[in-house]
Amino acid sequence: MRERGPRVALLAIGLFTPATAKTAIGVLRYARYPVVAVIDPDRAGTDASMHVGAGAGIPVVATVADAIGRGADAILVGTAAAGGRIPDAYRPALATALEHGLEVWSGLHERVLADPGLRAAAERGGGRVRELREPPADLPIGGHRRPRSGTATVLTVGSDAAVGKMTVSLEIVAALDRGGERAAFVPTGQTGIAIAGEGISVDAVVADFVAGAAERMVCDASERADWVVVEGQGSLTHPGFSGVTLGLLHGSAPDLMVLCHDASRRTVKGYGELPLRPLVELVRLYEEAARWSRHPDAPRARVVAVALNTSALDGRDAARAIFDASATTGLPAGDPIREGVAGADRIAHSLREARAERMAAR
Amino acid sequence: MRERGPRVALLAIGLFTPATAKTAIGVLRYARYPVVAVIDPDRAGTDASMHVGAGAGIPVVATVADAIGRGADAILVGTAAAGGRIPDAYRPALATALEHGLEVWSGLHERVLADPGLRAAAERGGGRVRELREPPADLPIGGHRRPRSGTATVLTVGSDAAVGKMTVSLEIVAALDRGGERAAFVPTGQTGIAIAGEGISVDAVVADFVAGAAERMVCDASERADWVVVEGQGSLTHPGFSGVTLGLLHGSAPDLMVLCHDASRRTVKGYGELPLRPLVELVRLYEEAARWSRHPDAPRARVVAVALNTSALDGRDAARAIFDASATTGLPAGDPIREGVAGADRIAHSLREARAERMAAR
Repeated sequence: MRERGPRVALLAIGLFTPATAKTAIGVLRYARYPVVAVIDPDRAGTDASMHVGAGAGIPVVATVADAIGRGADAILVGTAAAGGRIPDAYRPALATALEHGLEVWSGLHERVLADPGLRAAAERGGGRVRELREPPADLPIGGHRRPRSGTATVLTVGSDAAVGKMTVSLEIVAALDRGGERAAFVPTGQTGIAIAGEGISVDAVVADFVAGAAERMVCDASERADWVVVEGQGSLTHPGFSGVTLGLLHGSAPDLMVLCHDASRRTVKGYGELPLRPLVELVRLYEEAARWSRHPDAPRARVVAVALNTSALDGRDAARAIFDASATTGLPAGDPIREGVAGADRIAHSLREARAERMAAR
Repeated sequence: MRERGPRVALLAIGLFTPATAKTAIGVLRYARYPVVAVIDPDRAGTDASMHVGAGAGIPVVATVADAIGRGADAILVGTAAAGGRIPDAYRPALATALEHGLEVWSGLHERVLADPGLRAAAERGGGRVRELREPPADLPIGGHRRPRSGTATVLTVGSDAAVGKMTVSLEIVAALDRGGERAAFVPTGQTGIAIAGEGISVDAVVADFVAGAAERMVCDASERADWVVVEGQGSLTHPGFSGVTLGLLHGSAPDLMVLCHDASRRTVKGYGELPLRPLVELVRLYEEAARWSRHPDAPRARVVAVALNTSALDGRDAARAIFDASATTGLPAGDPIREGVAGADRIAHSLREARAERMAAR
């Protein structure tokens, strides 16, 4: 479903591959605004779906000028670079875009207008820049607002960072949509923000305001939806990012959680000696931590399903992983990508059932 | 014990009272650099200790010029303002200081040199500014470094924010010092940084780097001490700040913890409907959370003492609170301020015993 909004071209010069174009792929799969082209001279003249399995009918073109010819009025940097710098190969393309008055969207750490050449191009052509990781200046401390009564908030939580929480969140929203529910996606990282066209990158917020940022987004989203599905970040067990995860857990104050896990992963990504916790232990740990900042009489947040990422497994191992996850946790489990609609619908079904139980218990 | 370093005057115009001069009082009690004067025209001509119970022999003077006459070469903003703005009454004094080439230390949110008048004064006189809350630009992601082997890391944790963790940390360092141990204080908030003359305000760090900031400070301190005592922040149960607390817990990776609690407090400060958790539950919760980011075979972090702040209670209620805290948790308890050396020594003794047990268990 594509709605009104800017007409976007995705910048991925030399990098439009599954391994390097995570943001572009997320946008091609899930964005509701029109994408008119992917810019990658190495793959120009082909269809986007040939390279990343998404974006059928969207052409890969060689230059920003070609994208403008296709009607683009915004350019999104569609790849993440090590260290968060703007790749040097992108600078001339970004300059051309800004000089032609296009909007540039970037989720990189390096600020586009910090480059004097790009700043000059923007001044000449009137092109504006949206820094997707730049948090608002007026964030509150968390714990002082509640979402509209009757809304259900869902948070995707994980066994580790980078296991697919954003994808699971978007698939849950799509499954709830299919079921006729009003569901809103709350993005908390730059790819999610690029897809939604709004949101706050909670890991870029000053630490005191992580919970407040999450709370504001959830409360705002509850005004326009009956389900608020929040993209989780990191893991409570991650040595570097656990603080972000707990701030997001307490700030979003979910009613229901979905535990996300990459079925092929055994140790924390980037910390090879640190084993991941068993799923059943993670369920307990998230449910307990969710209670810490609540009144003892408040309803408890429950993990109601396991979403597996089985992309690195063959079909037989994937089926076994899904069976095992369900058997050990006693929860429905599925892979919403590999199993398609069936996997996501299974998770959405368990969310709807758990919500109905909560309403009945009141 | 006062050592070499700058000669500091504390700026507290009209505000040199126990309720409004928290930073100044902390510095008067604990700083190891010389304090030559307090600047407060309303109280000029008196002794600092008359107003805040600390700083005997240090004069209160009326102006920056008077402080310079006493040998000051640095001015520390000794009060915290609502909203973190520089009080307007301070601006002329800060301008005078900068114009005379003095260094200005500020832990406020508002940056001193963002005021054009103060910037001009600094340019004229060569005065420099140390922004105590400004984090370093090159912080790492946590989980990749360990402190020097053989060091013991102690973290003060709390039932809530603002219960006295900084004071307890400093009293523990002093008690270990008295026992002939080499102990280092790791400050994590602006008052602690003002006292130590170094440190990182972890709540002002971008959320992804809280653990990395704590880890760096602990590892650096372990090179010069056998005990590293880390000032805790917030509480795992705080609706706004819990993320900072968990990031600090995982980043500092303590061997031992001391649970701090204001014995007169029943609900989370600023969240009147949210009851504090019982101490025994908090002990369990911190010990469990400390394990989350560690290898399952690693030694567990233990809470080994309770430090109570009984300042709002009368003597009989204070004694009962200390007795009850010890009885319900099964841990030594004390108030290192009310009980003086005896309270702090009791806590330090339990730290030494627990450390000896850990060494023996290896």
